[in-house]
Amino acid sequence: MATLADIGLAAAINILSAFVFFVAFAFLRLQPFNDRVYFPKWYLKGLRSSPTRSGAFVRKFVNLDFRSYIRFLNWMPDALKMPEQELIDHAGLDSAVYLRIYLLGLKIFVPVAFLAWTILVPVNYTNSTLELAKLKNVTSSDIDKLSISNIPQESNRFWAHIIMAYVFTFWTCYVLRNEYETVASMRLQFVASERRRADQFTVLVRNVPPDPDESVSELVEHFFLVNHPDHYLTHQVVYNANKLAQLVQKKKKMQNWLDYYQLKYTRNNSIRPFTKTGFLGCCGAKVDALDYYTSEVEKLSKEIAAEREKVASDPKSIMPAAFVSFKTRWGAAVCAQTQQCRNPTLWLTDWAPEPCDVYWPNLAIPYVSLTIRRLIMAIAFFFLTFFFMIPIAFVQSLASIEGIEKVAPFLKFIIDVGFIKSFIQGFLPGIALKLFLIFLPTILMIMSKFEGYISLSSLERRSATRYYLFNFVNVFLGSIIAGSAFQQLNSFIHQSPSDIPKTIGVAIPQRATFFITYIMVDGWAGIAAEILMVKSLIIYHLKNFFLVKTEKDREEAMDPGSIGFNTGEPQIQFYFLLGLVYATVTPALLPFILVFFGLAYVVFRHQIINVYNQEYESAAAFWPDVHLRVIIALVISQLLLFGLMATKQAANSTPFLIALPVLTITFHRFCKGRYEPAFIRYPLEEAMMKDTLERAREPHLNLKSFLQTAYLHPVFKSADDDEDDDDLGEKWDNESVLVPTKRSSRRNTPLPSRISGASTPSLPEVHEDSQP
Amino acid sequence: MATLADIGLAAAINILSAFVFFVAFAFLRLQPFNDRVYFPKWYLKGLRSSPTRSGAFVRKFVNLDFRSYIRFLNWMPDALKMPEQELIDHAGLDSAVYLRIYLLGLKIFVPVAFLAWTILVPVNYTNSTLELAKLKNVTSSDIDKLSISNIPQESNRFWAHIIMAYVFTFWTCYVLRNEYETVASMRLQFVASERRRADQFTVLVRNVPPDPDESVSELVEHFFLVNHPDHYLTHQVVYNANKLAQLVQKKKKMQNWLDYYQLKYTRNNSIRPFTKTGFLGCCGAKVDALDYYTSEVEKLSKEIAAEREKVASDPKSIMPAAFVSFKTRWGAAVCAQTQQCRNPTLWLTDWAPEPCDVYWPNLAIPYVSLTIRRLIMAIAFFFLTFFFMIPIAFVQSLASIEGIEKVAPFLKFIIDVGFIKSFIQGFLPGIALKLFLIFLPTILMIMSKFEGYISLSSLERRSATRYYLFNFVNVFLGSIIAGSAFQQLNSFIHQSPSDIPKTIGVAIPQRATFFITYIMVDGWAGIAAEILMVKSLIIYHLKNFFLVKTEKDREEAMDPGSIGFNTGEPQIQFYFLLGLVYATVTPALLPFILVFFGLAYVVFRHQIINVYNQEYESAAAFWPDVHLRVIIALVISQLLLFGLMATKQAANSTPFLIALPVLTITFHRFCKGRYEPAFIRYPLEEAMMKDTLERAREPHLNLKSFLQTAYLHPVFKSADDDEDDDDLGEKWDNESVLVPTKRSSRRNTPLPSRISGASTPSLPEVHEDSQP
Repeated sequence: MATLADIGLAAAINILSAFVFFVAFAFLRLQPFNDRVYFPKWYLKGLRSSPTRSGAFVRKFVNLDFRSYIRFLNWMPDALKMPEQELIDHAGLDSAVYLRIYLLGLKIFVPVAFLAWTILVPVNYTNSTLELAKLKNVTSSDIDKLSISNIPQESNRFWAHIIMAYVFTFWTCYVLRNEYETVASMRLQFVASERRRADQFTVLVRNVPPDPDESVSELVEHFFLVNHPDHYLTHQVVYNANKLAQLVQKKKKMQNWLDYYQLKYTRNNSIRPFTKTGFLGCCGAKVDALDYYTSEVEKLSKEIAAEREKVASDPKSIMPAAFVSFKTRWGAAVCAQTQQCRNPTLWLTDWAPEPCDVYWPNLAIPYVSLTIRRLIMAIAFFFLTFFFMIPIAFVQSLASIEGIEKVAPFLKFIIDVGFIKSFIQGFLPGIALKLFLIFLPTILMIMSKFEGYISLSSLERRSATRYYLFNFVNVFLGSIIAGSAFQQLNSFIHQSPSDIPKTIGVAIPQRATFFITYIMVDGWAGIAAEILMVKSLIIYHLKNFFLVKTEKDREEAMDPGSIGFNTGEPQIQFYFLLGLVYATVTPALLPFILVFFGLAYVVFRHQIINVYNQEYESAAAFWPDVHLRVIIALVISQLLLFGLMATKQAANSTPFLIALPVLTITFHRFCKGRYEPAFIRYPLEEAMMKDTLERAREPHLNLKSFLQTAYLHPVFKSADDDEDDDDLGEKWDNESVLVPTKRSSRRNTPLPSRISGASTPSLPEVHEDSQP
Repeated sequence: MATLADIGLAAAINILSAFVFFVAFAFLRLQPFNDRVYFPKWYLKGLRSSPTRSGAFVRKFVNLDFRSYIRFLNWMPDALKMPEQELIDHAGLDSAVYLRIYLLGLKIFVPVAFLAWTILVPVNYTNSTLELAKLKNVTSSDIDKLSISNIPQESNRFWAHIIMAYVFTFWTCYVLRNEYETVASMRLQFVASERRRADQFTVLVRNVPPDPDESVSELVEHFFLVNHPDHYLTHQVVYNANKLAQLVQKKKKMQNWLDYYQLKYTRNNSIRPFTKTGFLGCCGAKVDALDYYTSEVEKLSKEIAAEREKVASDPKSIMPAAFVSFKTRWGAAVCAQTQQCRNPTLWLTDWAPEPCDVYWPNLAIPYVSLTIRRLIMAIAFFFLTFFFMIPIAFVQSLASIEGIEKVAPFLKFIIDVGFIKSFIQGFLPGIALKLFLIFLPTILMIMSKFEGYISLSSLERRSATRYYLFNFVNVFLGSIIAGSAFQQLNSFIHQSPSDIPKTIGVAIPQRATFFITYIMVDGWAGIAAEILMVKSLIIYHLKNFFLVKTEKDREEAMDPGSIGFNTGEPQIQFYFLLGLVYATVTPALLPFILVFFGLAYVVFRHQIINVYNQEYESAAAFWPDVHLRVIIALVISQLLLFGLMATKQAANSTPFLIALPVLTITFHRFCKGRYEPAFIRYPLEEAMMKDTLERAREPHLNLKSFLQTAYLHPVFKSADDDEDDDDLGEKWDNESVLVPTKRSSRRNTPLPSRISGASTPSLPEVHEDSQP
């Protein structure tokens, strides 16, 4: 049991490290040579270019203006200044709503913490159960004196906790409802916003049935001409262009090398550069680099042309799916929401995801296969969650001294060295587990891809759900009840349903100090480290030093990343869970959670404004998931409180808790019916209004040309000409007015955000290409 | 434990009673004075009129043709002869598909019974476990020798049962899938059938938001003119006409009495009839009957006119709901499947139920109230299921000798009579329970009505679901594990989840003989009694003797009833459950179930053809429920077999059963995705096809006049003129060609069935009125 002093020490260490991170960040971000690392978003938007301030050579790399170091925390108010509407224009609705999750945490937990400290803490503290217990040599910490553990059995004081459980539940539900309403209306407003987007007019049709007489394209056209005669406009079939995409990728690499050697040759005309044809240019025959790469590029160009020909002509490479565009938003909304065909597994229509959001490889999976794939993944995930320790334990046994000596006896003499021996014993087993946890999001993402989701946003949402479940079982339950998930599962199966909340409930107050430490490490120092972006910083400079050959390379060397919904959201949800579970049990934990939410909000707001480059825009489609998981946390907290109370023998007060989960679930069903449709369907009233407005404003709009190529596979666009990236970059530069990064000046020149960029339909593919 | 002889005796008794019922039925149905009881369906269709055969007076009432008594089981092949398509025309798709549930039972259980008897029975019988046990004084019956109980612990013979469990599951799923497919296509074909139905063009809009400037009617018109400009045709608002309906009902009664006295006076002109104004004409002032009723009718006519005026003019009596009709089926299909408004709880659109299917009082319940109502009913149903014994036990305690003596001491001298005493002791407690069970379907129906379902068909479906659950908990589990449902609940909560199947599984083989007796009483004799219609017979003749005053009264004296989905389907499902659970455990039970399904199929086919008058037509909307419940029975049977095996310590074979429920549930999800939409949505392709056909055939159709009054509240139609029932009856007579009841002759003159009757829009209200 940790004492107050222990926690104080841990807090000091973590605050100190967070402080160090902030200072380092403040220092590093002011250095011009880090500019691309800490402001990539502005580079991508074309609002900032490489630092070319006039002055000494050294000033190009190091900031010598000492005044700028004094206000080293200035980025914080800067990050908070940008109003929400501008943030939506700047970074998209997804990012803006993602930040609202942190705000939601603050909205819920500030009043909860206040109430818990003014009411529950005095109620708990003015008992002497633990002091009496201490006399009997039962250890307890000072934190426990503030918790429910300090109240004697059968006490009437438990009424305070029950009433507060009701108050907290009502408050949480109230905030959740308001937030759901706000986000739903933000989404509708965003969708109804001025800009014309291809996905508003387009529906994705899957499982087009095979027809012996007609091609997929003809079939789609005929079907929609017959069944939506007044609204059908055009369509694009989906090609299976995976091989073509590979070739284009390869050609791009070769072209890049060619550029590099040409640059080298231009600088030093005397020596013609040589290279080796083998692995990484290290082995194989030595050839003239310029000739070699020129011929390679030519060869690949021919191959690409042939492959494109093949894809375009071979009916087998056309998938039974198509993007069908309509004349009006109304027509698209109708088609997306209705069933087309007698057989509901054919002609499946859905809202088309935004063009950048499409996950192309999954477009052709047939319906029956989907059911089976989901079954397989459900089973796989079950085993992953409950039995993942088995392979890791196996690896760990191999990674022990004896294991290595058995597998590779020739290493024996190295292992016997004392230092290496202790390293292996101390670190290797842990590294196996750590490696697994690092790769877990990737594994979950692969599982989601296998399941056949067709948009990046839904892939991320699915992965987030699984990650949350994994965290809940292995981190939350795993920390409360010691033992592997499998052991828990086993004990749960053999326990009565009413005993499970008791088993967990009893253990909860005892683990409060552990979770406080966890919050400080993961939630304080971890978030502070996020802003420093150590990994990106190192990789960028390494790439810049060793690999960057051209300016284009330098652009690509910096991967700004994205908010990473699939890992970020489950992390936040874990804090919601901790906060709600401990609100009535150990209120001492709440301030730590508040600090997390506040700090994370500022940090991520800064990152979203300056760094992250969201790949897609789903218009906050994730909110129902967020809402549902907070509700789940609420129900879990109620059940666990019920279990805890039951063991406290507060028989006359405990039954009053039964109504809470029932009420909470009813509330959830109400919200689901009331707000969820806004995230799934597009109301006809809205569509009609937008159509009418548009018709009045632009009566002669040529919609067909706008929609014609919106949903072309990205590889066809980039393959159209070799240098299209640069071309597009130039185009973009010409189109957008260059303004300084200072936010204040941007107010006067509102620029189309990345989403609106879809109205210059070629832009998004630039980024798509750079992240194959 | 019942021996084979006991079961044989029970079977003999039940077969005998079934035989007696059939003979009685054969005799009674041939008597002309019972004609209206046993052939009401033909009367309602106007294809049969009161027997007026020429001949002796006695032949009007008694059939003296002895040859007709010889072939007393002739109705059976007659019932089976009518082909399914004709049955659909005659009685509607609901009835035809309802019969398919019995066929489904035969399709599943005939091969299952065959396999079980050829494979499992020999495997079970060639053991001697029970004989050895008998030596140790453990009793067991002969039936048990055929069951799984006869196999020793840890035997390898359990593999046979596991393999058969797989075979049965696959066969059941195969049959279920085929049936789902057939029913779905039958439904689509029915909906797409030639006849034009008002509900194909109409959508029910609920929760029209209040508007200060416009009336509901204007608001609806404007909204749909804006949002469905090309398709909106007309609409009808919904009036709150409950009070008006009462007045009309009352007037009808008075009018009827007036007719009666006029008839009486015509026959005997000398005496003017008198009546008393008080209760049932037995007390109160004596008045001239003709004058009294004439004045009453006039008074009510005025009141009705005033009330109609008020309903039509007072905006408060207009509910925020409307039936909106469209120019095309396509337009209606689109509107029913899409979301109209930003706020998904306003402007809720749904397929309009068939006009006769509408449950008018529920049309105006607001959205929020629905959630709360469902919550309240969920809680109420929980208590009803698990605690219904408490009030009954209370009533039973009152109904005991001591209870009555305490409440009503003055009855003591009566009670002390030996006969009455034993009657009270023996019967009253049982009667309390029996009364509850008789009223249970009514209670469940009231609960469903409270929940706000808007069509009679959905009310019946909901009640059926609840009745099934009640049966499962209180009859199935209650019979297997002795004790009240509450005791079970309590023990389940305190048992581990893995122990529950064990507890039940172990008890299952022992209860086989009980269920065999149950099947014979409820499923054989009960079904045979159904065809006799004792209740209807007695009530009809009593009414005919005492109450019938006019020919119209005689028509109304016979209530043909309907298939009663809310009680009938749960009963069938109970046999599915028994059959699937016992298929692997005690195959001896299967033949009894087969007899039930076969017999019930014939009996209900006869009843549907000759008796039942289905009130509404939902186009087999109940099939997804039927499918789901068979799946549930399958999963329960698998879990219980798993539990049973676990106690048999067949450790090396039992784990192979785990996959079964997972596979079954996956199968269900597949079916749900593949076939369920056909029962919820109307595919646009179908709608468009039908529209195009119709436009080609009847280019100048005046759809508006057809739809204008289709969804008028029935009370407005019947109140339009006083004698409309008769008028309509005449109209109907004029329209339909009178043909003899012999089916063969009908083949040549196919008549519009009751559903098609909707195309003569006034007809259904005749029946609607007669069942207020």
